[in-house]
Amino acid sequence: MAFTDADMAARDWLHNHLDQISAIPHLDGAGNLCGRLSSQSPDAPSILIGSHTDTVPRAGMLDGSLGVLCGLEVLRILHENQIPLARPVELISFSDEEGRFGGMLGSQAFAGMVTPEILQATDLNGKPLSAAMQKQGLEPLAVLDARRDPGSLASYLELHIEQGPVLDHSPASVGIVENITGLRKWLIRLRGEANHAGTTPMNMRKDAFMGLADFAHELPRILDENGAPDSRATIGSAQIVPGAANTVPGEVEFSLDLRDTEKRQLEELTLAVRRALSAIARRRDLSLDLELQSEITPASCHPKIISTIEKQANKLELPYLKMPSGAAHDAQIMATVTPTAMIFVPSKDGVSHTPAEWTDWADIENGANLLLQTVLELATN
Amino acid sequence: MAFTDADMAARDWLHNHLDQISAIPHLDGAGNLCGRLSSQSPDAPSILIGSHTDTVPRAGMLDGSLGVLCGLEVLRILHENQIPLARPVELISFSDEEGRFGGMLGSQAFAGMVTPEILQATDLNGKPLSAAMQKQGLEPLAVLDARRDPGSLASYLELHIEQGPVLDHSPASVGIVENITGLRKWLIRLRGEANHAGTTPMNMRKDAFMGLADFAHELPRILDENGAPDSRATIGSAQIVPGAANTVPGEVEFSLDLRDTEKRQLEELTLAVRRALSAIARRRDLSLDLELQSEITPASCHPKIISTIEKQANKLELPYLKMPSGAAHDAQIMATVTPTAMIFVPSKDGVSHTPAEWTDWADIENGANLLLQTVLELATN
Repeated sequence: MAFTDADMAARDWLHNHLDQISAIPHLDGAGNLCGRLSSQSPDAPSILIGSHTDTVPRAGMLDGSLGVLCGLEVLRILHENQIPLARPVELISFSDEEGRFGGMLGSQAFAGMVTPEILQATDLNGKPLSAAMQKQGLEPLAVLDARRDPGSLASYLELHIEQGPVLDHSPASVGIVENITGLRKWLIRLRGEANHAGTTPMNMRKDAFMGLADFAHELPRILDENGAPDSRATIGSAQIVPGAANTVPGEVEFSLDLRDTEKRQLEELTLAVRRALSAIARRRDLSLDLELQSEITPASCHPKIISTIEKQANKLELPYLKMPSGAAHDAQIMATVTPTAMIFVPSKDGVSHTPAEWTDWADIENGANLLLQTVLELATN
Repeated sequence: MAFTDADMAARDWLHNHLDQISAIPHLDGAGNLCGRLSSQSPDAPSILIGSHTDTVPRAGMLDGSLGVLCGLEVLRILHENQIPLARPVELISFSDEEGRFGGMLGSQAFAGMVTPEILQATDLNGKPLSAAMQKQGLEPLAVLDARRDPGSLASYLELHIEQGPVLDHSPASVGIVENITGLRKWLIRLRGEANHAGTTPMNMRKDAFMGLADFAHELPRILDENGAPDSRATIGSAQIVPGAANTVPGEVEFSLDLRDTEKRQLEELTLAVRRALSAIARRRDLSLDLELQSEITPASCHPKIISTIEKQANKLELPYLKMPSGAAHDAQIMATVTPTAMIFVPSKDGVSHTPAEWTDWADIENGANLLLQTVLELATN
């Protein structure tokens, strides 16, 4: 996890390898490690390749680090083959993508999106970001100085495992990401009346759990009517109060995770969700309370870079799928400051954030080659 | 709670009051306290009035004890007015109705339904029944000797608070119970696959919670098609695994509490529940596991005693409602050995098992008078 000894050891390893290929390493104030291969025009905007090496607890070996390693390999090939570059090529390993201190700290600092409040962030054990950084010899206030001038960037590319089952279930070897989904996450409370399960007739109940069941039942209709095939709605947790088998639930608190690649559609889904919940609460005589807990705006990948990647995939005769990213990525932040694109490789059985996380070596090679050819196209012309 | 010092103090209090009205007190091997007013034919089968004085933790003051006190008052009036009795009238306070050690221990022992296994029962803190009895100077093995010869009983009457909202919402002052609902309680598990809420398309999910929501949605139809107005189905608790907002639920374990006054209908509801769950599990590719946790057979009150009570209610000009009991009672056990009936008084707002439990004094007086007139009718003719 971010700013642990293991995280810093990964940075040291990468620092050494960047050094070995003369990609001058630089650790910025947010802990982002960058390495740069210069070009004939050293001041031209760079092609930036990136991802992250921090992980969730008990993670797999590919999420994040695969993108950094493939980027390192691209830089190594450019260096060893002394490819003449029209513009610099850089590799970045962003800090705390996985969110020990909230998520995508490094890319947000790099994009100039952090405010001094970030220094108050704590991890799940209550340890402040500032203390975690100081322990590693980093100056917390420097996070606020990590902003990179967007004028110095030509584009951002990220290779990542899909973390979903779509590519694994398709004949495609790689995915070309068109959009990165936005997210709205709510904590929703329905309150009715706890009553005896035997003595309370069905028509005299104010059963909060049945309100939740009604709502869950409406979700497919809401997605069909107001969403698109990429829309997702998930009820991942629910607490029933009092939670006894012989008591009609008086209260239920549950999460709703709503995702879409289009901001307008996310708005429409939100409206439909509110309408459905209000109707159910009215019908069942429940009180309703929605608390928006987090919100991430959807991002679009850049059409020109997408078509560059497609052209290279066709040259390599790689079967590919144009697809959305359902998970959040640093690319989402980078898309707000520079033309951005992502290459996906398949996740075996769609799993990630577990040691079972896996991608066939052949697919990794295909993805890395596609990244290399795209960088060659973007950096040498 | 049963066999605590407070419980024994209540028994001592009742013992003294039975003594004062010459209703010879007797504590049986199960801790049931009985008092008996003899009659012209001392060996004739008795009219038994009963309920319990033990409570759940943080209970109200009426559940159980009201029936015992109204019974005591009936015996006091018979004694003080030297009413000539054709058969003995007895009062019983059953032990552990509320289930510190499983529920209705006293009435089950009295009806001869306990086996030596009962001695292994423990409370929620793991304390064995035998230790709790020994602490109060009672001999645990004597529980097995508490059986009363059914031939010595003419009928059993119990007055109890309704513990539901039906009477409180009706113009009736008392309820005459026709049936006591039976119950089947299951723990049900649906297992699918935990997945990322962002990257897993809706049509590639095996969402265990959505399976539960589907089932909850079917419950009203199942009750309409296979049950009666008295049928009840309640999902009172559910645990979602892993239970994270951004993870499609891989597993859900929930309770189902199904009640009906007719055994045949309880069977039909059970079949319909199994059919619905199987279909949902098949449709959503989930595995299904049902564990029956408890079962209580429905009981019928005796038509002759019901009509005796009705006659007395009409004489007293009491508005009454013939109704089922949704809660379990000692009367349910007694109905298996002797003609049994119950009188309900209204529960304010339908609540019980809370200090807010309440019944208007006027309704209590009406219920007690109805009990008295019924006993007079049954014991003097």
